[in-house]
Amino acid sequence: MVIVGAGFAGLRAVKRLSDADAEVLLIDRYNYHTFIPMLYQVATGFIEPELIAYPIRKALRNIFNADFLMAEVEQINPDNKTITADGRTMTYDYLVLSSGSQANFLGVSGAPQFTFPLRTLDNAIVLRNHILSCFEQAVKNLENSSLQEQLLTFVIVGGGPTGVEMAGALQELIYDCLVKDYPQLDLERAKVILLQSGSDLLASYPKHLQKYTVRTLRDRGVKVHFNNRVKETSSTEVVLEDETRITTATIIWTAGVEASLPKPQAEVSTASKNKVEVQDTLQLPKYPHVYAVGDVAYVEQDGKPLVGIAPEALQQGGMVAENLQRQLKGKSPKAFNYFNKGRAAIIARNAGVILLLGKIPLGGFLGWLMWLGIHLYYLPGLSNRFKVLGAWLKDYLRRDRSVRQVYTMISADSRTQLK
Amino acid sequence: MVIVGAGFAGLRAVKRLSDADAEVLLIDRYNYHTFIPMLYQVATGFIEPELIAYPIRKALRNIFNADFLMAEVEQINPDNKTITADGRTMTYDYLVLSSGSQANFLGVSGAPQFTFPLRTLDNAIVLRNHILSCFEQAVKNLENSSLQEQLLTFVIVGGGPTGVEMAGALQELIYDCLVKDYPQLDLERAKVILLQSGSDLLASYPKHLQKYTVRTLRDRGVKVHFNNRVKETSSTEVVLEDETRITTATIIWTAGVEASLPKPQAEVSTASKNKVEVQDTLQLPKYPHVYAVGDVAYVEQDGKPLVGIAPEALQQGGMVAENLQRQLKGKSPKAFNYFNKGRAAIIARNAGVILLLGKIPLGGFLGWLMWLGIHLYYLPGLSNRFKVLGAWLKDYLRRDRSVRQVYTMISADSRTQLK
Repeated sequence: MVIVGAGFAGLRAVKRLSDADAEVLLIDRYNYHTFIPMLYQVATGFIEPELIAYPIRKALRNIFNADFLMAEVEQINPDNKTITADGRTMTYDYLVLSSGSQANFLGVSGAPQFTFPLRTLDNAIVLRNHILSCFEQAVKNLENSSLQEQLLTFVIVGGGPTGVEMAGALQELIYDCLVKDYPQLDLERAKVILLQSGSDLLASYPKHLQKYTVRTLRDRGVKVHFNNRVKETSSTEVVLEDETRITTATIIWTAGVEASLPKPQAEVSTASKNKVEVQDTLQLPKYPHVYAVGDVAYVEQDGKPLVGIAPEALQQGGMVAENLQRQLKGKSPKAFNYFNKGRAAIIARNAGVILLLGKIPLGGFLGWLMWLGIHLYYLPGLSNRFKVLGAWLKDYLRRDRSVRQVYTMISADSRTQLK
Repeated sequence: MVIVGAGFAGLRAVKRLSDADAEVLLIDRYNYHTFIPMLYQVATGFIEPELIAYPIRKALRNIFNADFLMAEVEQINPDNKTITADGRTMTYDYLVLSSGSQANFLGVSGAPQFTFPLRTLDNAIVLRNHILSCFEQAVKNLENSSLQEQLLTFVIVGGGPTGVEMAGALQELIYDCLVKDYPQLDLERAKVILLQSGSDLLASYPKHLQKYTVRTLRDRGVKVHFNNRVKETSSTEVVLEDETRITTATIIWTAGVEASLPKPQAEVSTASKNKVEVQDTLQLPKYPHVYAVGDVAYVEQDGKPLVGIAPEALQQGGMVAENLQRQLKGKSPKAFNYFNKGRAAIIARNAGVILLLGKIPLGGFLGWLMWLGIHLYYLPGLSNRFKVLGAWLKDYLRRDRSVRQVYTMISADSRTQLK
């Protein structure tokens, strides 16, 4: 059987299939599993990128029925039961699609070329380099006031968890840490702007936590704007629908995601965000040998679609492993039922929000501490946990971040060429 | 005054000038100081790159008369006392050239395009990604025997300390760590080949340490070849002067270095390796306001040129600071005298060579342990020392390396495009 994508769902499925009577091939375009919830910490210099990127081959060392292939899956053909990766076609008996999601630029002109998404480790490193480069460029152009403004204005599009976390962490990076590195700069002029098209941040949280989030961000100095869509972006500005123009060199795109699906050579019905429609067993309606899990699948619970967070993907990964084992033994697959452990977002130092078990709201210091604990617990790799804890303590106690190096090698990326 | 280059010499000079009655501007193309002696550890996955890259602005935080500019110095004009960086021309009263060295491909055809130098952090990351990609490509091409051979043959050109350290560390990476990740590969076929044009490794060490080095590397499985020059390189092979051809996808170039000097708009006399000739005070003969230190300067001690290691640069950095302070006070500069603390190279696990005080030779386990201790002591940043120590312990006790992620973003580099 073949599993496409080594994210939360895919990797969990492989592990739970370790005692199955089947050969498992895991395919991913990267050779590491990315701990996506902490990408914003790489982008803002908290931690070295390697700490949230666990080598897949290391994860599979003791799983003797699993093999890994680093390749890009180009096509799947569920009628022939074949899959094509890096130009090579293989057959499978069972297929699990767990290829996750990617940025969706929602048709905004200029967004694919000029904004920074934050979905992969590469995205996070590119963004980190870009942010730090903006400060180096600003120091070189002390006398050019308009260029200063452009370089020191950071716009984040999207008020979901990633947008909120990025805004808070970036504000702290500038005012806790970079302010010590750039005494020449007037950082009163630096601005972190969070743009939300609707009227609330963190849409799926209770009202009072939403309000707490806005208040906290504004208290810390983030400018939060509501009820205005981005119409257009370029390398120098964001244009909103009401024709407001914001001069900036950095537009961070967290506004939309969609399923990242290899091209199917068959009719596969999709729901919103290009997600694959599945039965309650996570099987594709017409193809009982194909499963879709995680961000790539459209799954409802209690009449509402799942929101696309790690616990959902992990539980689906476990379920698909169980169902595959049942199918191998001639039993019929069981329906997936999401157990809502809860969700969490961090806003800034000492401030987080949590919705425990999907219903118990917690904000403030306790929410913040629990966010840290949960993420430390789920982060793969014991030594990585220690290193991350060390980095957090350093930031908390000394208001200093570990990583501020600009790697020049990736300046080939057109978005990082500031000069 | 302006200091060009934040390597060992330049950074030491800035620190020692902290109480001088002068404004100091430090210029470097990177925003971090690279601990070059440990680049090979980044290239072979021991440690995260950030651990040997110390942010320059952080180093200068408490040095109130120093400022930093991240820029590429293009020209110096010692007659007008001007310097041009990133297209902008500034004047100086005193200038320190400490811009280090760069790879010298010795006119070998194809070497600039097809070999991997190991002089900068970017070089090390690119090389690490390339090495790991070779293994991923090899797994994808199990049935293609000749391609397997090409991908799993690693050639290191140059038998100096970098070449020796790289060879030993790469051999261990493959046989201690990657062998667990790639059970499908027949790693008996993997080869690390060290090519030395002369008849000895580590030319400036005593004969018995040289022999120990060769014996140790060969015992561990490295193929060492002597007395043969590289004539030509391409993306698929190395051709030697005796027409031997080695099929390989990876040629690591450690054979030559030369001074990395901004173009002078005046006659500046240079010695071998493009190094600037200086007086014994480290001043340029015709320009008493210009100093050259570190790898960029040609300095002799006891009739022999210095070899280009960190202690030499550090001591020269200290000396130039002292001489500048003397000049500021109207006194005449003093002659530089190198105090030879010694030099060290690591060969492999439990094996190193040291020449203490330039004359007491030490090999084996003690040499290895001292190398580790010395480098840990000199590495900038307390937390980096702990992290590096942790990574070494992990490698030593568990034969496992921290870093095996392939970043795809830099696959734009033509040398990493294997497909």
